[in-house]
Amino acid sequence: MPVQFQPRRSIEQVEEGTELAPRFDERGLIPAVTTDAVTGEVLMQGWMNAEALKLTIETGEAHYYSRSRGALWHKGATSGLVQTVRELLVDDDQDCVWLKVTVAGGASCHVGYRSCFYRRVPLGSREELALEFTETDKVFDPHEVYGDAPNPTVL
Amino acid sequence: MPVQFQPRRSIEQVEEGTELAPRFDERGLIPAVTTDAVTGEVLMQGWMNAEALKLTIETGEAHYYSRSRGALWHKGATSGLVQTVRELLVDDDQDCVWLKVTVAGGASCHVGYRSCFYRRVPLGSREELALEFTETDKVFDPHEVYGDAPNPTVL
Repeated sequence: MPVQFQPRRSIEQVEEGTELAPRFDERGLIPAVTTDAVTGEVLMQGWMNAEALKLTIETGEAHYYSRSRGALWHKGATSGLVQTVRELLVDDDQDCVWLKVTVAGGASCHVGYRSCFYRRVPLGSREELALEFTETDKVFDPHEVYGDAPNPTVL
Repeated sequence: MPVQFQPRRSIEQVEEGTELAPRFDERGLIPAVTTDAVTGEVLMQGWMNAEALKLTIETGEAHYYSRSRGALWHKGATSGLVQTVRELLVDDDQDCVWLKVTVAGGASCHVGYRSCFYRRVPLGSREELALEFTETDKVFDPHEVYGDAPNPTVL
């Protein structure tokens, strides 16, 4: 039986209940935070539409909505870096989901790093702020994996 | 010297460079993922405007933008549950930040739980989907802490 979402009827139902009643924004999207199920590292933050969230629940593999391509995105379909969902959680007001995943191939970032969050922002006021790399070696070469596919980064 | 953001000039600059050039969406907001610096648990997913991100960097305490109140939000100003930022990271296309924090009082959720993500979504197709609570005891009583302040959850 396909996954059904429930209508949002009350704050108590949404915050304290056991019904899944996610809130999608005006674009029809909900943010998804994806962490490595073993290390706890945040791998990426993506977006899901209703179809992507339902497919993620039903199949146990992470599906997102690609805003740059405007299409459903089965993560790993191109790169092979499929994310198997070990645990899926929803937040208090049900406008965000958290996926704990294991990743075939060990990388989740289209630039080639393990995590999309490979740069640190130094804290405090300073003359010049320079990001610090926390990963130095890429897990894969994005040119080999994606070829001439357009880069999803929007300026 | 106050924190300055750089203009976004190229994909290489944004993805592979050391300049902080965050992308705020059409509402002027960037999503922020907040994890516990010790346990790695995702505590909340919030939003920042440019001012909130600058204040977070400059002060080392998490500032967000409250969409329900339409105002800058120094987390913990009302509840005392201030988040001290231990590490701040930015993602590949610089449209999301990740805060690793320690929390005075040990809770980050306005409902009273440690994390906002206190319910699990069971995976797979099934007759009826029921969320499973992963936290059973609240850290604080929200009525005592927030009194009659309006609940931020939007239906």
